[in-house]
Amino acid sequence: MKIGIYGYGNLGRGVELAVNSAPDMELFGIFTRRDPSTVKSVLNTAVYSANDVLKYKDEIDVMIICGGSATDLPFMTPDLAQNFNVVDSFDTHANISSHFENVDKTAKSGKKVAVISVGWDPGMFSVARIYSSAILPNGKDNTFWGRGVSQGHSDAIRRIKGVIDARQYTVPVEETLNKVRNGDMADLTARQKHIRECFVVVEDGADKKEIEKEIKEMPNYFADYDTFVTFISAEEMKENHSSLPHGGLVIRNGFTGKDNENSHTIEYRLKLDSNPEFTGSVLVAYARAAKRMNDKGDNGCKTAFDIAPALLSPLSAEELRHTLL
Amino acid sequence: MKIGIYGYGNLGRGVELAVNSAPDMELFGIFTRRDPSTVKSVLNTAVYSANDVLKYKDEIDVMIICGGSATDLPFMTPDLAQNFNVVDSFDTHANISSHFENVDKTAKSGKKVAVISVGWDPGMFSVARIYSSAILPNGKDNTFWGRGVSQGHSDAIRRIKGVIDARQYTVPVEETLNKVRNGDMADLTARQKHIRECFVVVEDGADKKEIEKEIKEMPNYFADYDTFVTFISAEEMKENHSSLPHGGLVIRNGFTGKDNENSHTIEYRLKLDSNPEFTGSVLVAYARAAKRMNDKGDNGCKTAFDIAPALLSPLSAEELRHTLL
Repeated sequence: MKIGIYGYGNLGRGVELAVNSAPDMELFGIFTRRDPSTVKSVLNTAVYSANDVLKYKDEIDVMIICGGSATDLPFMTPDLAQNFNVVDSFDTHANISSHFENVDKTAKSGKKVAVISVGWDPGMFSVARIYSSAILPNGKDNTFWGRGVSQGHSDAIRRIKGVIDARQYTVPVEETLNKVRNGDMADLTARQKHIRECFVVVEDGADKKEIEKEIKEMPNYFADYDTFVTFISAEEMKENHSSLPHGGLVIRNGFTGKDNENSHTIEYRLKLDSNPEFTGSVLVAYARAAKRMNDKGDNGCKTAFDIAPALLSPLSAEELRHTLL
Repeated sequence: MKIGIYGYGNLGRGVELAVNSAPDMELFGIFTRRDPSTVKSVLNTAVYSANDVLKYKDEIDVMIICGGSATDLPFMTPDLAQNFNVVDSFDTHANISSHFENVDKTAKSGKKVAVISVGWDPGMFSVARIYSSAILPNGKDNTFWGRGVSQGHSDAIRRIKGVIDARQYTVPVEETLNKVRNGDMADLTARQKHIRECFVVVEDGADKKEIEKEIKEMPNYFADYDTFVTFISAEEMKENHSSLPHGGLVIRNGFTGKDNENSHTIEYRLKLDSNPEFTGSVLVAYARAAKRMNDKGDNGCKTAFDIAPALLSPLSAEELRHTLL
């Protein structure tokens, strides 16, 4: 099957590499809003102008949309779903319902399949949550993120006056994590679950005390957490903080028995060297499903909840039963 | 939806309790090959003779078959799938393909949905394996079982002359487990992955040295493992070894990047106080899916690979997107 990539940043590069590893896929090309001649891809994939995308509508089986959730995907995905099977990683949890409805409308009108909000959270963590809660209805989920780089929090620090660069790591509080693993069902505050580690490069002569205070008191982003700020040089930032690791855990504790006397713990854990390459790999697996569902006559908007696991694998049903069941 | 339970041992009791916890299900009854008047259920569910099962064919939405994989399920599941939507936990990995074909034939002829081989392995561990391998095709799985009671290995010890009772725990080798968690991709032997702890009650005057030797040298079951045998009293067995805990992990290490420079680890872990109650809870979630698929006109044999996660949950698609995505 032929895959198009729409948008070429970190995630687009991750998708490009993942398509290249798939035995049943080839890259048709990358679509960019920049001047295509200025975009050089990791694997020398052909680069086209986003303006020309409709010209290739019959040559692409699935378009993987690699834009941002804040301003790109809310219009890109509904727009492209009219003419292409698409996959996106829309991750603004609060707006998923309206994004779903917008995309569903155009995908149905174009008779295409659009898979939204796949990646790892939403995505694989959502899958962990739905299986666990369906099996153990009498129980409670906890999601921990990290240790990993939060782009949103890093950006928030970069917007402070005097800051040149910043990297924010979200880190689960080990003590709380172990309590939950051992069945603790207490309600947890933001502060109990995660700490925030910030590495910051500032301009010469910047007021570090003031910057540290501004970070720690920033509402929503940092005020509700134990936040640690370390000032480093631009060289140290480049050397020690240029990769984008991430990960986390979804833990469900649940009870069974006549008097809830038996407890069970289901834990799903990810430890990722590269957040965009892992997310890209998830998008590519769901692209396979999108084409298969559309080939069978299905259309409209789907999430990971609506897609049977066999549709993600290049193996046949017989091979899957034989090797993975 | 109305659920029938066919076979009433440890697993049947687990299913009974799980149906009772489901907001959208009720128990129709238990079917037994024993004299129904001798079977008293945990929740006072009605008990019928297995001989009468066809009388109730229109009153039961899904029959959950709680027989053994060795001699019961290979004929029970194909037989019942002709007249009922069914779910089983067939777990003889080597025979799953032929079981699938037998069940598929009768389920299709009866226009019913039959879900086979659900539980935790096969079942949730299979689901973990298929998602992980579809996302990280360039990688390797490892499954560890335990710490938990293996019924098959306990039974094997009980068949030795002079043995009154036995309980065998399968235990992952912690050192190997941590190596795999940290990305070690070496091929592992049975001995490197698991140890076997045996607690054995023997007759007065039995030759313990000889029994220990016979256990440790038993081919397939123990000879390939480091096996530890402890002789205990019948009282100690009852007091410390009467529950059926189990669990384990599926770990996939995989690589992405232009030169496979980034590594990722996906870990799915279960820690279960009661193996039969957890397995029963999985069967009940798939019973929900079986009815929903059949209501939509689907039929034939299915495994966990063929079933979208949303079908397992009592929540609506909107609720799922809102709360779990």
